[in-house]
Amino acid sequence: MKLVTLARDLARRKARERRGQFVAEGVRAVEALLASGLPTAGVLVAPALRATPRGATLAAALEGAGWAVHHVDDDELAGAAATEEPQGVLAVATIPTWDAEAVAAQAAPDARLLVLDAIQDPGNAGTMIRTAAAFGATATLLLPGTVDVWNAKVVRGAMGALFTQPTLPVTCDGARAFLQRVAATCWVADAAGTPVEALPPVPGRLALVIGNEGQGVSPAMRALADGLVGIPIAPVVESLNAAVAAGILLHACRAR
Amino acid sequence: MKLVTLARDLARRKARERRGQFVAEGVRAVEALLASGLPTAGVLVAPALRATPRGATLAAALEGAGWAVHHVDDDELAGAAATEEPQGVLAVATIPTWDAEAVAAQAAPDARLLVLDAIQDPGNAGTMIRTAAAFGATATLLLPGTVDVWNAKVVRGAMGALFTQPTLPVTCDGARAFLQRVAATCWVADAAGTPVEALPPVPGRLALVIGNEGQGVSPAMRALADGLVGIPIAPVVESLNAAVAAGILLHACRAR
Repeated sequence: MKLVTLARDLARRKARERRGQFVAEGVRAVEALLASGLPTAGVLVAPALRATPRGATLAAALEGAGWAVHHVDDDELAGAAATEEPQGVLAVATIPTWDAEAVAAQAAPDARLLVLDAIQDPGNAGTMIRTAAAFGATATLLLPGTVDVWNAKVVRGAMGALFTQPTLPVTCDGARAFLQRVAATCWVADAAGTPVEALPPVPGRLALVIGNEGQGVSPAMRALADGLVGIPIAPVVESLNAAVAAGILLHACRAR
Repeated sequence: MKLVTLARDLARRKARERRGQFVAEGVRAVEALLASGLPTAGVLVAPALRATPRGATLAAALEGAGWAVHHVDDDELAGAAATEEPQGVLAVATIPTWDAEAVAAQAAPDARLLVLDAIQDPGNAGTMIRTAAAFGATATLLLPGTVDVWNAKVVRGAMGALFTQPTLPVTCDGARAFLQRVAATCWVADAAGTPVEALPPVPGRLALVIGNEGQGVSPAMRALADGLVGIPIAPVVESLNAAVAAGILLHACRAR
């Protein structure tokens, strides 16, 4: 199958799951993919990539990396891409698979876990995984109802964090078993929870659960909570953006 | 002009500036618009609005509010909307104008200001204004290069904060004069700045400058800085999302 056709096919979740491949678009995502060493089926390069010095550097690096580089025009690249500005570059690579048992076995005594409970917005999901990696989280657990993180918009928002940060799709029962396995305390983000400014000392191993943008955390995950944590805000605003709230909580609860 | 045509016209920045009107799309934005009391030219309502209880409640409230309600089908509404899921509702309202001198005169002794320096992503800009309002900021200053905040995607991301939070478009000289007028200390977000965990006591009045997603804060605004503040992250991630970084800094520097 031509790479352009394959990239378009991989816009569908079912195709990604069947093929075990995903699409990375844009300069930063492809730079990070190159650095990650993930197996790559090939890369589409269009003239727009050379419009910036950073893009031109990437173009040269791709030629030297032994990847299958296919030159296309900007319209052809735009037609294959799922994000709005692919910046002249798009790569198809293998979805990394993480072994939950191995991830659990390697958790540090001060491990942090992010748990996404039905996060629907691709930009929010990508940003949260990026933030988790930035603050040293061990892994991100993905509960049912969460957007597929190999969607090109999530990959773009994660800025490469998906290539190194383990992501584990789990059921609620699977999440409970995993948290027990690593002996993690479970804190659930909730507007009415203990204010983040007044948190008790952060436990050795901690899982932080962030809920759906509209509904919050599901009753099943609330049942696992050892505590609720919140961020007090002025009443003029209904809520914080979910990725901003996750960022403030991940920062406040990071291992030091 | 028909409201559908007007809404489509207002997708262009020039049309918004000439008419002094903007479009609010989606249930939360229109709820907030209704609560704000801003003058409204009219609202388009499609059957999709009644698909959720919250939407049905809003539909009833709009009928009772004395607004000009125009019923259209879902396709017609989608054609008039700039955001992907308008949820069956779109309103055209008057852009509020804020008087910089009045805003400055009303600044509290512990006032916080957010300064956006060429923030280009509409979602980021909207989220930052929403976060500033959530943490009690007095106003947001908008430097050249920043996306027009009356763009429907910014309005959506701001979740109503734009209707109450003063936003002041300024030049760099205008920003300097405003900060002098309110005697605000100026802290600039910079990855290499003083770690947010080790900040000196936050000054009485503080302006926090957040820079462009790729380039950071401009040299002209850096020249105004009384200090640089940063958020240490793991080297595996190049940077935090700009709205997440702004959220962590606004939270850390909020007035108490």
